[in-house]
Amino acid sequence: MEGAILAIGNELVQGKVRNTTSFWAAQRLFLSGYKIKEIITIPDDLQLIKEHLSLLVKRYPFVIISGGLGPTTDDVTNQALAETLNLPLETNQEVLTQIRAREKDLGLRPNPLRERMAALPKGAQPLTHTKAMAGYLIRYAKCLLFCLPGVPKEFLYLLEEKVIPLLRKHLPPSQAISSLTLKIFGLREADINLELQDLEEENLNIGYYPQLPEIHLTITALGKSEEEAHQRLQEALGKIKALFGEYIFGQNGDTLESVVGKLLSERGETLAVAESCTGGLIASRITRIPGSSSYFDRGVVTYSNQAKIDLLGVSKQCLETHGAVSKATALAMAEGIRRISKTTYSLSVTGIAGPTGGSPRKPVGTVWIGFSCPQGTVAQCFLFPGDRQLVQDFAATTALDWLRRYLTYDTLLPSYKFLRNC
Amino acid sequence: MEGAILAIGNELVQGKVRNTTSFWAAQRLFLSGYKIKEIITIPDDLQLIKEHLSLLVKRYPFVIISGGLGPTTDDVTNQALAETLNLPLETNQEVLTQIRAREKDLGLRPNPLRERMAALPKGAQPLTHTKAMAGYLIRYAKCLLFCLPGVPKEFLYLLEEKVIPLLRKHLPPSQAISSLTLKIFGLREADINLELQDLEEENLNIGYYPQLPEIHLTITALGKSEEEAHQRLQEALGKIKALFGEYIFGQNGDTLESVVGKLLSERGETLAVAESCTGGLIASRITRIPGSSSYFDRGVVTYSNQAKIDLLGVSKQCLETHGAVSKATALAMAEGIRRISKTTYSLSVTGIAGPTGGSPRKPVGTVWIGFSCPQGTVAQCFLFPGDRQLVQDFAATTALDWLRRYLTYDTLLPSYKFLRNC
Repeated sequence: MEGAILAIGNELVQGKVRNTTSFWAAQRLFLSGYKIKEIITIPDDLQLIKEHLSLLVKRYPFVIISGGLGPTTDDVTNQALAETLNLPLETNQEVLTQIRAREKDLGLRPNPLRERMAALPKGAQPLTHTKAMAGYLIRYAKCLLFCLPGVPKEFLYLLEEKVIPLLRKHLPPSQAISSLTLKIFGLREADINLELQDLEEENLNIGYYPQLPEIHLTITALGKSEEEAHQRLQEALGKIKALFGEYIFGQNGDTLESVVGKLLSERGETLAVAESCTGGLIASRITRIPGSSSYFDRGVVTYSNQAKIDLLGVSKQCLETHGAVSKATALAMAEGIRRISKTTYSLSVTGIAGPTGGSPRKPVGTVWIGFSCPQGTVAQCFLFPGDRQLVQDFAATTALDWLRRYLTYDTLLPSYKFLRNC
Repeated sequence: MEGAILAIGNELVQGKVRNTTSFWAAQRLFLSGYKIKEIITIPDDLQLIKEHLSLLVKRYPFVIISGGLGPTTDDVTNQALAETLNLPLETNQEVLTQIRAREKDLGLRPNPLRERMAALPKGAQPLTHTKAMAGYLIRYAKCLLFCLPGVPKEFLYLLEEKVIPLLRKHLPPSQAISSLTLKIFGLREADINLELQDLEEENLNIGYYPQLPEIHLTITALGKSEEEAHQRLQEALGKIKALFGEYIFGQNGDTLESVVGKLLSERGETLAVAESCTGGLIASRITRIPGSSSYFDRGVVTYSNQAKIDLLGVSKQCLETHGAVSKATALAMAEGIRRISKTTYSLSVTGIAGPTGGSPRKPVGTVWIGFSCPQGTVAQCFLFPGDRQLVQDFAATTALDWLRRYLTYDTLLPSYKFLRNC
C-alpha cells in the first residue's frame, strides 16, 4: 500500500527547520505496512502546493500533508486544498467554537487571524475533538488526504493516534506486520549490527536508530497473518534478548526514567540524587515523569565545593586531599544525600564535562558515579566520549541505568564499556 | 535565483536515514542567495526519478541530485539521467582510471559492479579530480544538473567546494541577502504576526518558528548590494525592537541560559536556584553552558515538603498554613537558598505541573516563582498552559527570563501574559 507526504513550509526549504516530521511519518508508516513513495517538501507557495497536490491525489490512495495550517497570513494550505479539489472554504463551527473557547481560557482577545484556522475545505472532518490542535481528513475521489499541523508534537500525536488507525480501517495493508522497538544502553551500533546481521531476511527487518547515548532497534516482521508475523517477531526478540539481555532497558515508549520510576513505585522505595557535573539533569529527567513525587524525595546540584560541604556534609579534607572529582567525594556525596533524605537509594555524580577543566590524569569526560543502597555505598569511574552535553547525557544515563540494573538484576557494580581504571 | 533538490534513496523514504544532506544544502544555498523551491525525496525507482527529473529540468536553472550513484544494482541515477536527457551512457575514462587505481591501492580485485560507476551520461564533467568520490555536473538546455553522492561527508564537501562556486560563476545571485533570527519569550505567534504584518514586503520576509515556549523570528532582507540588504535588515530590526523590546531575549545562536550566563559573568555575580515542580530543569539548563561554574553555585530540588524544611529552612508552619504551592513558600524557598549559598541572586519555583494534584483553587499549571536579590525578595503567581512537560518548560523559561529582565532592565516584577491574580 503506497502513499506520499507533502510537507509545506518556507522554513523547511530554507534550511531553517529540519523536516523531521516527514522522516518520522515515513518510518512509522513503513513499520505499519505502508510504503511512502514520495516526500515532497515545498514552501508556503499556493501555486506550487496546488501543482503537487493535483498530481499526488491522482497517483496515491493516501496523501499526508503537513504544515501551513496555522493562523498567520503565510499559511495557505487550506486555500490550496480547496482550490485543487474544487471545494469551497467553509467555516467549521466546531473548530471555531474550540478556538474561541481556548482564547477565553487563556484570556486572549479575539484575533481574526486565529479564526482563519476554522475556514476548512467543505467536507473536512477534524481529526480530534478533544485537543486544541488543527488537523483534518478529507476524501477526494479515491484518495484519503490527511492534513496535519507542522508542529512536531501535534503531528506525531495525530499520526499515531488518528492517521494510522484510520489507514488500517480504510486501506488495510496487504501483509500483516508486527513490530517492536527495543531500547539499548551500553553497546555500540556497529557491534549490535555485527551480531544481528544473520537474523535479517525477507520477512524480518531490523532498523538501527542511534539516539545517543541510547541505541534504538526496530524489529519488523511480516507474515501472511497477524499470528505468523507475531510469531516471527517473538522468535527474533527471543534471540536478541538472549544476546543483549541486561543492555535492553525498555521497549517502545519506555524511557530509562519511566522504567526506573515504575520499578521504584512497585517496590515502594525512594530515591534522592546529588549531582555536580550533570547539573540537575538526572533530577530533571526523573521529575519529567508524572507521579515521580511518590518515589523522588529530593536532589541537590552541588556545583561549588562549598555546596558539597554545606548540603552533603562532604568534608573539606576529602575535597582537599582527593579533589572534587574522586572516588572519595562520589562516595561521600552519595552517602550524604541518602543520610539526610532517608531514602532507600541515592545516586551521586561528580566529573569533568568540559570543555575546560581537564588534565592529563583527569581528562574531560572523566566522571565518578556513586550509588548508595541498604547493602552499602559504591562508586565507579567512567570516561565518556563527546562534547559537554554528550558527557552530561552519558553520565545521567549511566547513573539511571545503574539503578535499573540493581533493581532488576541485583547487580551492585554493573560493568559498562566506558568504565575506566582509576 | 531558484532551484530544486532531488534526493534519491530507499532508506530516505523508509525512515531509516534522515535526509540531512538536503537540509544542509537548502540552508547553505539560501544563505548564498539561492532559493530552493522543491526538495523531492524518492526511492531508487527508475520511473519515478525520470518523471521528476523531466519536470525539474524544465522548471529550474539548477537542480541538485543526490544518491544512487554507487556500485550496487539498485543505484539507477545515472541511467535515469541518461534516459531523461536522451543521452547515451558512456564510460568516462578518467573516472574508470580513478576506480582502477583505487582498487589497486586497497588491494581489491576488479569488480564489474564498481566499474559501472564510470558509465556516465555523455557530457558529464566529474566535479573532483583529486578525491575518490562520485559526483559530476551536466548541462541540459538551460539547466545545470549537479549529481552528488548521497554520503553526507562527500555531499557536503562537493556542495561547499564545487557546487556553490560553480553556481556563483554560472548563475550569479541576482540579489544580496542579509538575515538574522530574533528569539522572543512571552508573546504569542499570532499576536506578533498581527503587529508585524505591514512590515513585510517583496524584499523583506519574516518567518515565524515557534519553539514553545519561545518564538523565533527570522528576518531576511534582499538588496541590490550587500549594503542595501544590510541596511534594509537593520531598519526592520529597529522597528521590531521598538515594538517588542524587552520580550526579545537574544538572536541567532543565543539561548536564554547563555544570555543570563553572559550577563552574570560580566557583572561578576552569582546565582542559586531552589526548584520544586521544575525538578532540576533550571539548574540543568544553566549548567549546559560551558563555564557556568563561575556564576552558578548550587541548586536544590526540594520535591518533598521535608526537603523544603531540611535544605531551605522553610518552616513547617508556613507549609501547613499556606501549602507548598503558595506565595509564602516561594518567598521562603528563594530566601532560604540565597541565604545558605550566599549568592547575589536566587530563583525559586513551586507549582503543580500535573497531570494530577490540581484543584479548583489551584488548577494544574499554577506555579509560584520567587526571586531574591539585594533589593529584596518577591514572588508572582502564574498559570501556564499545556501538559506536564510544557508547564515545566514554561516555568523554567519564565524564571530565567525574569532574571534576564532584572539584569537588563532593572525590573523587579516584570509583567507576563501568564500572570495570575492569586
